[in-house]
Amino acid sequence: MTTSAALSRLSLNQRTTASWSLPEAIKGCVEAGLGAIGIWREQLAEVGLDEACRLVAESGLRVSSLCRGGFFTNPAEAETAEAQNREAIDEAAALNAATLVLVPGGLPPGDRDLEGARNRAARAIERLVPYAHEHGVRLGIEPMNPIYAADRGVISTLAQALDIAERFEPEDVAVVVDTFHLWWEPGIAQQVERAGERIASYQICDWITPLPADSLLARGMMGDGHIDFPAFSRAVAKAGYHGDVEVEIFNADIWAAPPASVVETMADRYLELVQPYIDG
Amino acid sequence: MTTSAALSRLSLNQRTTASWSLPEAIKGCVEAGLGAIGIWREQLAEVGLDEACRLVAESGLRVSSLCRGGFFTNPAEAETAEAQNREAIDEAAALNAATLVLVPGGLPPGDRDLEGARNRAARAIERLVPYAHEHGVRLGIEPMNPIYAADRGVISTLAQALDIAERFEPEDVAVVVDTFHLWWEPGIAQQVERAGERIASYQICDWITPLPADSLLARGMMGDGHIDFPAFSRAVAKAGYHGDVEVEIFNADIWAAPPASVVETMADRYLELVQPYIDG
Repeated sequence: MTTSAALSRLSLNQRTTASWSLPEAIKGCVEAGLGAIGIWREQLAEVGLDEACRLVAESGLRVSSLCRGGFFTNPAEAETAEAQNREAIDEAAALNAATLVLVPGGLPPGDRDLEGARNRAARAIERLVPYAHEHGVRLGIEPMNPIYAADRGVISTLAQALDIAERFEPEDVAVVVDTFHLWWEPGIAQQVERAGERIASYQICDWITPLPADSLLARGMMGDGHIDFPAFSRAVAKAGYHGDVEVEIFNADIWAAPPASVVETMADRYLELVQPYIDG
Repeated sequence: MTTSAALSRLSLNQRTTASWSLPEAIKGCVEAGLGAIGIWREQLAEVGLDEACRLVAESGLRVSSLCRGGFFTNPAEAETAEAQNREAIDEAAALNAATLVLVPGGLPPGDRDLEGARNRAARAIERLVPYAHEHGVRLGIEPMNPIYAADRGVISTLAQALDIAERFEPEDVAVVVDTFHLWWEPGIAQQVERAGERIASYQICDWITPLPADSLLARGMMGDGHIDFPAFSRAVAKAGYHGDVEVEIFNADIWAAPPASVVETMADRYLELVQPYIDG
């Protein structure tokens, strides 16, 4: 396989190269020979949806995900959240994104009812499904490492995300399988198999120790930490996933490095640790 | 109920008042009217086992736990670990501790086989059981928050700890239910009920955000964070737990405060958030 064919499923999530604007990130992906890009709404807003669609079409890249909808758990902001999620669905449809990533949201201030927050997230997803279906957008529920259960994502395991997703059609509601969030989950290989055609996105980055001081920026480059990428990627391939593999790394050191060199490193690590195990 | 009766099940885990020696901690517990103490092996070694037994007997305190055995996962250190665990069992027997807390251990350096490490921990526990049984010591498996899965505790959920514990008699192998480690676990109330008579220890402290820079010192005083202590304590009571409630807080700010005032605060918070819900 040529390098360019080997990289055809690799996608750069924009948060990995946080200093790049959307046009710069698109250019960086094309120059590195990647097949796809994961777009963030904040950087999308800077150029506008029409211009973004034009740039993406011109580049030939697929949009592996739009990040992100969700943040469903605060009852005081439920209406705003629904409106924002509908807007995100519109954008995902225009960009032909493989999925709209849904980050569930954390506990509202002063609220300690985790089960209540989880139920609110599930109901908010249910309310979004008809609109998403109408627009041909697949919702991707992202279970998040329990390190974020209080302040970011109350859905903590793939099993729990699938319990919600399975109430809907697989083309409407699916899951985001992110190694950082799920590597520790007991029985994760079986849950990935259970997910099967419901895997909307495979996101990768490493779990590193000691954990950086800011837990929101605790993710590492594949190979720098403790996650067994060959094993995880084999499980994802075995489950029948044929989509893109998105590298999403929140890390202050990586953000400080020249973005093109970050893309180069991530491509090298992907070719070493992931691609041989996921391309059938 | 008098305050002193209300505090009769409250135990100070020595790590909450890290600057106190064992004699100081024992004195502090007695003066605050607590019923028990959780002893650490490091501070036990400073005074010696015989003197510690004498001080404990004289104080009238129960020893709610000895912390800690475990650290089973590095194959290169398996023999040393087994010897240290037998020594810990001897100490737990002499102190008549309600349980010897077992911290499973993390991934060995460079090893990414989490399932392998989990299996080694389970087998090491199995090897310890006859010795513990002979000495009348109850082993308490401590499932740990996934934040520590790589470097400290590969057993990540109460469900997973129970899967191991249930291979043995409840008087030999039980579990440590720690709110910090388990508050996020999907279906935790059902798992606590499943644990039933296998709960060897109920440890409490809070999950605070933002997470302090050193993730090993990320625990907070009850009431300062996101955990619903009334609900969790009710579940533990409903499961039939009648033992002590141990406050174990690793936190640099709390360690810097005068220990007696920390004990006072923890007693207040216990009376407010835990005691009414756990004392039947």
